[in-house]
Amino acid sequence: MGEITVTLPDGSDLSVEAGATVEDVAFAIGPGLGRDTVAGVLDGDLVDKAAPVYEGARVEIVTDGSEEYLTVLRHSAAHVFAQALQRLHPEAKLTIGPPTDEGFYYDVTDVDLDQDDLEAIEAEMRDIVAADYDIERVERTREEAFELYEDNPFKRDILETEAADDDVVTFYVQDDWQDLCRGPHVESTGEIGAVKLLDISAAYWRGEEANETLTRVYGTAFESEADLDTFLERREAAAERDHRRLGRELDLFSIPEHSPGCAHYHPNGMRIRRELEDYIRETNDDLGYEEVWTPELNKADLWKPTGHYDNFTAQGEMFNWEQDDTEYGLKPMNCANHAYIYGREKRSYRDLPVRFSEFGTVYRNEQSGELSGLLRVRGMTQDDGHAFIRKDQIQGEIVDVLRAIDEIYGHFDFEAEYVLETKGDNAVGSDDIWAEATGALEDALEAEGLDYEVDDGEAAFYGPKVGVNAVDAIGRTWTIGTVQLDFNIPERLDLTYIGEDNEEHRPVMVHRALLGTFERFMGVMIEHFNGRFPLWLAPEQVRVLPVTDDDVPYAEEVAGELERAGVRVGVEDRSWTVGRKIQDAHERRVPYMLIVGSNEADSDTVSVRDRQERERQDVSLDAFVDHVVAERDEKRVEPDFLGTEQ
Amino acid sequence: MGEITVTLPDGSDLSVEAGATVEDVAFAIGPGLGRDTVAGVLDGDLVDKAAPVYEGARVEIVTDGSEEYLTVLRHSAAHVFAQALQRLHPEAKLTIGPPTDEGFYYDVTDVDLDQDDLEAIEAEMRDIVAADYDIERVERTREEAFELYEDNPFKRDILETEAADDDVVTFYVQDDWQDLCRGPHVESTGEIGAVKLLDISAAYWRGEEANETLTRVYGTAFESEADLDTFLERREAAAERDHRRLGRELDLFSIPEHSPGCAHYHPNGMRIRRELEDYIRETNDDLGYEEVWTPELNKADLWKPTGHYDNFTAQGEMFNWEQDDTEYGLKPMNCANHAYIYGREKRSYRDLPVRFSEFGTVYRNEQSGELSGLLRVRGMTQDDGHAFIRKDQIQGEIVDVLRAIDEIYGHFDFEAEYVLETKGDNAVGSDDIWAEATGALEDALEAEGLDYEVDDGEAAFYGPKVGVNAVDAIGRTWTIGTVQLDFNIPERLDLTYIGEDNEEHRPVMVHRALLGTFERFMGVMIEHFNGRFPLWLAPEQVRVLPVTDDDVPYAEEVAGELERAGVRVGVEDRSWTVGRKIQDAHERRVPYMLIVGSNEADSDTVSVRDRQERERQDVSLDAFVDHVVAERDEKRVEPDFLGTEQ
Repeated sequence: MGEITVTLPDGSDLSVEAGATVEDVAFAIGPGLGRDTVAGVLDGDLVDKAAPVYEGARVEIVTDGSEEYLTVLRHSAAHVFAQALQRLHPEAKLTIGPPTDEGFYYDVTDVDLDQDDLEAIEAEMRDIVAADYDIERVERTREEAFELYEDNPFKRDILETEAADDDVVTFYVQDDWQDLCRGPHVESTGEIGAVKLLDISAAYWRGEEANETLTRVYGTAFESEADLDTFLERREAAAERDHRRLGRELDLFSIPEHSPGCAHYHPNGMRIRRELEDYIRETNDDLGYEEVWTPELNKADLWKPTGHYDNFTAQGEMFNWEQDDTEYGLKPMNCANHAYIYGREKRSYRDLPVRFSEFGTVYRNEQSGELSGLLRVRGMTQDDGHAFIRKDQIQGEIVDVLRAIDEIYGHFDFEAEYVLETKGDNAVGSDDIWAEATGALEDALEAEGLDYEVDDGEAAFYGPKVGVNAVDAIGRTWTIGTVQLDFNIPERLDLTYIGEDNEEHRPVMVHRALLGTFERFMGVMIEHFNGRFPLWLAPEQVRVLPVTDDDVPYAEEVAGELERAGVRVGVEDRSWTVGRKIQDAHERRVPYMLIVGSNEADSDTVSVRDRQERERQDVSLDAFVDHVVAERDEKRVEPDFLGTEQ
Repeated sequence: MGEITVTLPDGSDLSVEAGATVEDVAFAIGPGLGRDTVAGVLDGDLVDKAAPVYEGARVEIVTDGSEEYLTVLRHSAAHVFAQALQRLHPEAKLTIGPPTDEGFYYDVTDVDLDQDDLEAIEAEMRDIVAADYDIERVERTREEAFELYEDNPFKRDILETEAADDDVVTFYVQDDWQDLCRGPHVESTGEIGAVKLLDISAAYWRGEEANETLTRVYGTAFESEADLDTFLERREAAAERDHRRLGRELDLFSIPEHSPGCAHYHPNGMRIRRELEDYIRETNDDLGYEEVWTPELNKADLWKPTGHYDNFTAQGEMFNWEQDDTEYGLKPMNCANHAYIYGREKRSYRDLPVRFSEFGTVYRNEQSGELSGLLRVRGMTQDDGHAFIRKDQIQGEIVDVLRAIDEIYGHFDFEAEYVLETKGDNAVGSDDIWAEATGALEDALEAEGLDYEVDDGEAAFYGPKVGVNAVDAIGRTWTIGTVQLDFNIPERLDLTYIGEDNEEHRPVMVHRALLGTFERFMGVMIEHFNGRFPLWLAPEQVRVLPVTDDDVPYAEEVAGELERAGVRVGVEDRSWTVGRKIQDAHERRVPYMLIVGSNEADSDTVSVRDRQERERQDVSLDAFVDHVVAERDEKRVEPDFLGTEQ
C-alpha cells in the first residue's frame, strides 16, 4: 500500500500508510498521544479513533479533558440511557439520541415515562456505568440492520435516508445491547464519570409537527461528579432567573401561539429596547455609521448571487414562498440589501469607509422544537452594521468596533472574551488577503492589549472573524458582538471603488453587530441581571409609595418633579399597607422606592429604599432627583447608594 | 305593481312604484332634481339613471358638478377615446377602460401607438365630442355579445367571468360604435367639456405579469376647458417636484427591482425618517401611548377571528403562504397584535385608556401595476396607535388626537381638512352606540372649532371615523391622519375591562395614525416642500464652502463648532469654484451655505446664504450657531433669515 498525506492542526503535513486510522496518526505523532486518543476530527467531523484517514484530510486528535471528548462521552451516555430504558421497559422503541451542548437527549416511543421512571432508569444507568462494559464498533450489512429493526420504523427510516448509500452500517455494542450509530464513542461505559437525567418533554419525529409524537428524555454526563455538581448548581441558578419567567412576571414580552419564535414586546420590554436602541444609535453615530432601512420582504432573487439563497433554503431556514408567480422571501440577514445600497453609487477611495447600520429585523425558520424564549427565535432585530473599506483600513476599523464593544460590555457588567477565527477549508479569497486580513485582526487585538483565543480553521468561508463573548453573572458564556471580514460578497456582487490610481478596486466588507440581536441580548441580560436592570434600562425607575391615602397628593408632587427630569416614575395609589407596597415594588425590581408620609411632605424630603434594601431617610427631593439623573445618564451598573450627594 | 321603499341620504324613506328607476326617484323628490339627474348611487355603486331601484336600497342622486358626475363623464370620455382609436386604427382591440381619480385609462392591444398617434386620436376625440352623439344603453343577449366579440378574447373573458351570471348584458352605443359596459354614462358625447390624452405605458391583462402585455393609454376629461387647464398646470407643478425624481437626486431612497413596492431608505432619507420618528415618539409619549413592538410574521390564524383574513385574502391583498404545514402571513395591519397584548391582562376601568403605539411595518400585496413611488407601496411603516377606552372617554380621546394632528400639520405647513364618516349599511354595533360615538366625534370637532365635511354612510362597518386631509403646497389633498372608532374587534376578540360595578364591559378601540405611513408621508412631504425640507428635517442642514483650498482648515473648524451643537454639517472640499460649490449645494437643497475665506477666518465670522438666495456677510459664528439651533429646535417651517439675531 502507498502513502497518503494528512494535515495536522499546526499546518504541518504528515505521511502515513494508506488505510491508517486516526489512532495510527496519533501514534505517528507520538506514543503518548496515541495512548490518550479517544476520537478524532476529520475535516471538522467528529469520528471514531478507528476511522481511516484519507489523502488531504485535516486531522485533529481528541484526547480526554477536551470539549470534543465530552461530546463523545455524552453520546455514549445516551447509549447507556437507552440500554437502561430497554432493560426496564423492553417495549420502548428508540429513534435518535444525539449529544448536545448541555448533555444529550434520546427520543423514544411506545413507553410512558414519569419522574419516578426517570429515577429508576438513572439508577440503572449507574449500574451500567459501574459494570464498565466494553463499547464495541461492529459493522453489519444493510440486510442485517433491517432485520434487527423489523419492529422499529424509525431506525428503518434512518437506514433508508441518511444511510441509504451505505452498504455497511455501524452498530455500537455494549453488553447484550446495541444501537445503529455512526459513533464515535468512549471505549467502555466505565469512562462516564457521572450521569444525570434532567427532563422529559414531547418531540416530533424529524422535528416536524406532522410526524409522530415522541418522548424526549434529556440527560447529561460528565467526566466527574464534581463537574456534574458545578453544572447542576449553575443550572439551578439559571432556572431561578429564567428570562421566560421574568418576562412574564415583569410583563416585558410574550411569544404567543400565533407567532412562534417571534417576540411581542410589551410596554415594559419596549422601554428597555428603546433605551438599547438609543444607546446603540449613539454609538453607531460616533463610529461613523449612517443608518438605513431596508424591507423584510424581497424577491428571493436578491439572495441568489450572494450564495445565501442556496445556503438557507437547503436547510429550510428561510421563510420563502411563491405568490403571483414570484418567489418572495423574508430577509434572513441585511447584508444583501446594504450591499445593494453601496453598489448604487460610484464610490471613491476618499469616500471609504462607507458604513451602513440598521436595526434590521430578520426572520429564520428555526425548527419549532429548537425555539427557546428569546434565546432561540425566528424573528429577531439585529443591531447590524456593514462597513465597506479599503484593505489598508482593516485594522483601524476593527479597533474602533472592538473599543465600542468593550465600552458597551462595561455598561452591562459583562466580562469579555475574544475569539479569533482563522482560515479554514473552502475559503474564498487568496492566501495573501487572508494572511493580511488575519494579521490585521491580530494586530488590532494586540494593539488593544486583549487576550484572545484562536479557533484555527473555524472562520466561515468568506473571511476571518473576531467574536466577543460575554461572560454573565453566573459564569455562562454568550456570543454577543462579532466583527467579521467578508471577501465574498464584494466579489460576487462586483462591488468596487475607484482608487487613487483611477482603477477599480474591491472593497472589503465588514459585518458587525454590537449587541447581536435585541432578542438574544435581552434574554441574556434579563438572566444576567436577574431582572434587576441598571437604572437607565429599568422600565419603572422609581416608585413613590405614600404611607396612607392622605399622602397621595405629595406622592404625586414628588412623581411630577421626577417626571420633569425625564425619570420613569409610578405612584402606588392602591390602598395597601406600606409593607405590601414595598414587597410589590421589590417583586417588580423597581430600582428606587420613595416612601412618603406627612413628615416627608412637611420637609420636602423622601425616604429612599433601593433594591438591595438599603434605606435612607430625610433625603431632600432635589438631591434625590440629581442622584437618579446622574445614575441614569452615566449608565451606572452598580450605583453608590446616595453615596456622594449627602 | 306594488310599492317599494328606498332610503335617501338624509335617512328619510321614500315609497315608489316597484320597477321605478333612479331617475323616477329623483323626480319623486322634485322635478328640478329629476331633470338634473345624470346618474345614481345604489348602495354605494354608481349606476345609470335608468337603473331600477329595489326594496331597501340606499339611493343617492348624482347631478352635474359633483365628483360622481365627473367620474361618469370620464368613463364616457374613455369610450370617446376608444371610438376615436378604432376610427383611426380599426385593427385595435379593446379590453377595459375605467375612470380613475385623475381621469381614465383604456388598455388596448393589437396596435402600436406613439406620441404622434395620441395627438391624432385626441383630435378625433374632439370631433366626436363636437358631433354630440347620443349615448344609448342597449341590452343584448349573451349570444349576441359573444358574436360581436368573436375576435376579442378579452371581452369574451369578461363575459365568461364578471358577466358569467348575466343572461342579458348592456352595451353603450354612440354613433356607429359600441362597447360592452355596465355604465353609467352621460347622455351625449357633447357633455364632455374637455378631453386630453396624457400618457402611454405598458400594462398586463388583469394586472398579472403572466398575462398578455397591453398598451395603456391615460387620459382625462373635465366639464370645462378651464378645469382641464387648472388640472394640467397642477400636474406640471407636481411633475417638477415628483418625489421619485427628487428621491434619486437627493439620494433619499430607492425601490429596487428585487423588492417591488418596498422602499430602501438611503442614509439621507433615513435621517428624515429618524427625525419624524423622534417627533412622533415625543407626541405619542405626551399623549400617553406606550410603545410596543410586534412581529411582521404571524400565523394566518391571528387575523381570522377579527375578520381581516377573509377580507384581505379575498382581494389577494395579503402576503400569505403555507410552509411546514402552517399558514403564515405578513401583518397587513397591527391592530390584531395590539388587541392581543391588551387581552393578556385583566384591565380595570381605572387603567383605561390603555394606549399602545408602534412604528409597525405592514405589507400589503398591491398589484404591481398600481405601485407608484412612495405613494402606493407594498411595504409601509405606520405610526400606528390603538387606544382601548371607555365609552365616556371617546370625546376626550378624540380631542387629544385632533390637537396632536393639528400641531403636527403646523410643523409641515399643511392646511388641514376634516371629514367625518358616519354609519353606513352593514355596520356592527347598536344604533345607540353609533349615535353616541358619532355624537362624541361631532362634539370633539365642534369643541375644537373645526369645520368639517360629513361623508354620510361612508364609515367602515366597524365604527365612525374622522379623517384629517392635508392640503399641500400646490393645492392637492392627501389623507394623512385618521382617528377611527372600532366596536368590532373588542366584540370579536371578547376584549373586556372590569367596571366600577365589578362587571365586565367592552372597551371601545380607537385606531389612529398621525402621519399615516412614513412612506406616504415622505412622498407627500418631498413634493410639498419640493425637496426643500424645513431645517430640522434636512439631511444636510449646513454646508461650509471654503473659497479656496487654503480655507479648508477654517471651514472644518466652523463645521466642528456646528457639529458640537448637533447640526448636520458638511464641508465642500472639492477644488471647485465657489460658484459651482454654491450651485451644487442649491441642487442638494441644503438650507444654509456658509462661504468662508480669509476675511471670515480672521474675524471668526461666516458669510451666510440660504436656499432663497438671501445673503448676509460678517455673521459671527456663535450667532449663526444659535440661529440654526433655534430654527431646528422650534421646528420652524419658514425661518426669518437671521432676522432677530443680528
